[in-house]
Amino acid sequence: MTDGPVRQASLREHNLGLVLRQAASWSSRSGRRLAGPRQELEGEVARPPSRADIAAATSLTRATVSALVDDLIAGGLLTEVGPAPRAGAGRPAAGLVLSADGPAGLGLEINVDYLAACVVDLAGGVRHREVRRADQRPGRPDQVLAEVAGLAADARAHAERQGLTVAGAAVAVPGLVTPAGLVRLAPNLGWRDVDVPDGLDALDGLPVTVDNEANLAALGELHAGPTGPASFLYVSGEVGIGAGIVLQGALFRGARGWSGELGHVAVRPDGPACRCGARGCLEQYSGQEAILRAAGVGGTDDLRPRAEAGESVVLAALAEAGAALGVAVAGVVNLLDVEAVVLGGIYAPLAEWLGPAVRAEIGQRVLTAAWSPVEVRPSLLGGDAAVMGAAGMVVRAIHDHPARWLARVAT
Amino acid sequence: MTDGPVRQASLREHNLGLVLRQAASWSSRSGRRLAGPRQELEGEVARPPSRADIAAATSLTRATVSALVDDLIAGGLLTEVGPAPRAGAGRPAAGLVLSADGPAGLGLEINVDYLAACVVDLAGGVRHREVRRADQRPGRPDQVLAEVAGLAADARAHAERQGLTVAGAAVAVPGLVTPAGLVRLAPNLGWRDVDVPDGLDALDGLPVTVDNEANLAALGELHAGPTGPASFLYVSGEVGIGAGIVLQGALFRGARGWSGELGHVAVRPDGPACRCGARGCLEQYSGQEAILRAAGVGGTDDLRPRAEAGESVVLAALAEAGAALGVAVAGVVNLLDVEAVVLGGIYAPLAEWLGPAVRAEIGQRVLTAAWSPVEVRPSLLGGDAAVMGAAGMVVRAIHDHPARWLARVAT
Repeated sequence: MTDGPVRQASLREHNLGLVLRQAASWSSRSGRRLAGPRQELEGEVARPPSRADIAAATSLTRATVSALVDDLIAGGLLTEVGPAPRAGAGRPAAGLVLSADGPAGLGLEINVDYLAACVVDLAGGVRHREVRRADQRPGRPDQVLAEVAGLAADARAHAERQGLTVAGAAVAVPGLVTPAGLVRLAPNLGWRDVDVPDGLDALDGLPVTVDNEANLAALGELHAGPTGPASFLYVSGEVGIGAGIVLQGALFRGARGWSGELGHVAVRPDGPACRCGARGCLEQYSGQEAILRAAGVGGTDDLRPRAEAGESVVLAALAEAGAALGVAVAGVVNLLDVEAVVLGGIYAPLAEWLGPAVRAEIGQRVLTAAWSPVEVRPSLLGGDAAVMGAAGMVVRAIHDHPARWLARVAT
Repeated sequence: MTDGPVRQASLREHNLGLVLRQAASWSSRSGRRLAGPRQELEGEVARPPSRADIAAATSLTRATVSALVDDLIAGGLLTEVGPAPRAGAGRPAAGLVLSADGPAGLGLEINVDYLAACVVDLAGGVRHREVRRADQRPGRPDQVLAEVAGLAADARAHAERQGLTVAGAAVAVPGLVTPAGLVRLAPNLGWRDVDVPDGLDALDGLPVTVDNEANLAALGELHAGPTGPASFLYVSGEVGIGAGIVLQGALFRGARGWSGELGHVAVRPDGPACRCGARGCLEQYSGQEAILRAAGVGGTDDLRPRAEAGESVVLAALAEAGAALGVAVAGVVNLLDVEAVVLGGIYAPLAEWLGPAVRAEIGQRVLTAAWSPVEVRPSLLGGDAAVMGAAGMVVRAIHDHPARWLARVAT
């Protein structure tokens, strides 16, 4: 129950959202979601909804729906598509779909050994993607951010040549980020108190948000593919190990926004020293560098082929990393009773070898394992989850608040 | 925004709740909350609200408020108290307070070495409390439940002699409980698949709910005393160790209701065998039996006096238990970014000795400890938290849905 009458302006906002989401829900049923090219969903592809369909589904009058649809088309959010020729009497109505050449989201990612950018359109299509692999640790934060700004400018230019308008950017960083975009600490990058929007020169006036990479990857995973479990732990394996915790279908950020530091959960309290100052953190057993060292392999790209070739040292290294990961993850399942564990980052292509050890630890250590099986599976988006989740967050903000976008383009 | 017009019946339900909570909020401001005798809150004690005050606070008409208040008085939920004599013109209005002789909640607790019952009235007063200390492990579940039913009958008789009506019971159990009240597993009691409502013969028709003891204790703690942090970890130290996780002011139960199994988080993956079948669980380091064994002490009641006397073996045992608890708790804080850790059960009277070790591990292991201090403190309710939380849950259900209670007494 609301405390008073709904004002006209907020009623229009509400109804714009209702109408847009009707078209969006068709787009997602037809398989166009925030997913990479790997993932093609199957299922019935119904015709896109007409104005009359939307009026029927929302209980709004046809006149109201038509006026709202006109505004959404003018703002570049919806497109009318011609009906398929049909036998019988009457002119079939045009269908409404999310616009593939309206506003788009720019995702950026700063990680220890790569930088990435991608552009996702309103209908979930990936329209641009670039990854630059290089160790970012030697560079000063301002140098790294200047290169990210360059990636962003390239991505924006590519998007604009395709007729898109980049509506905003979200930046994924492997560290602790304040709501204002200050990176308090990114231990594996060696960053402390780095102002990311400032260092990006706010990308020429584009709205910029900054968030933890595991959080954005978990959001990417949540919205990719078919509806999965409502509660899961997304584990991001990189040089550091982060986690995004999804509870009841929503990202859980913690009281101060700093949840998910799985990499610093202790596996052995007196284990090897960690960069964070503590001992025996999971990162020291299952982080990328620990795996490469134990496997005697130079780069992460070599791990999968050498595991496939059955090299015993590599297999042993993965089993050991998986067991330590399983100990920490079993603790999380004991505490949070999540339904699934998603292996992301470098863990995604290695899930075939890490998964069995993780499952074994869960089976042995989780008190409820006998009644409540926990699914352990690779991420659908793999290494792209964070940058795709970042771009998707920008796009979903438009889905959720189309009136704000219309107000921006009207001025 | 609601989907349609609010029906008259649900409008009345809603408004009954509004009116009752106005009186309840005065009662809680004046210090009458679900707290034990230990805790006397200070602060201004305003006069209880009159019908006119409630009309002003809720924007309902005076006539509507008066009709609702009459119903709440008739149902035994509100009581009118006479105004203090006042100088000047006009007859001062009567004040409305929660009834101290209307419906009450019965809390029951089954733990490894004690059984407990308590009755809490609508205004939060504890009207009856009984604890029977005895090892429950030798008894069969049906024998234990028969004794609990006896405790419940005594409590109910005591309450009725004071003019109260017991509205329902909630039972705290140290184990995994299904929504129907089946105890799937209580490892330290040795229970598997025990139907608690059935074993209690449903207490002569009383509505009975069953819940995990740490969950109920966390709820007790959440509603006891002044408004505390919105996110905290309540740790229940008994023979087993459980946790209740409060996030954003609400108990987090997990996807299937089985969250909070802190006692089975691994401290050392290859440590001593646990009753659950795994190795190195926290319970093996910081459970009641591990502490007593290390301290060379026979019963938990002896721990505090001997720690106060400075016995070095006891102090070392507590420091060691605190350190292991701190390792596990630091992992939770890294994951969930909670603002406080509440030491409950046998940990509450020992917090002076356990707290420093827990704080040291948090300080060393939590990545954000430098910016986000985490409060570590004893439970306000001590060993009574679960049974008080159970009784309080029954009472709060009446606060939240007074119309349901009125419908019950009307038939």
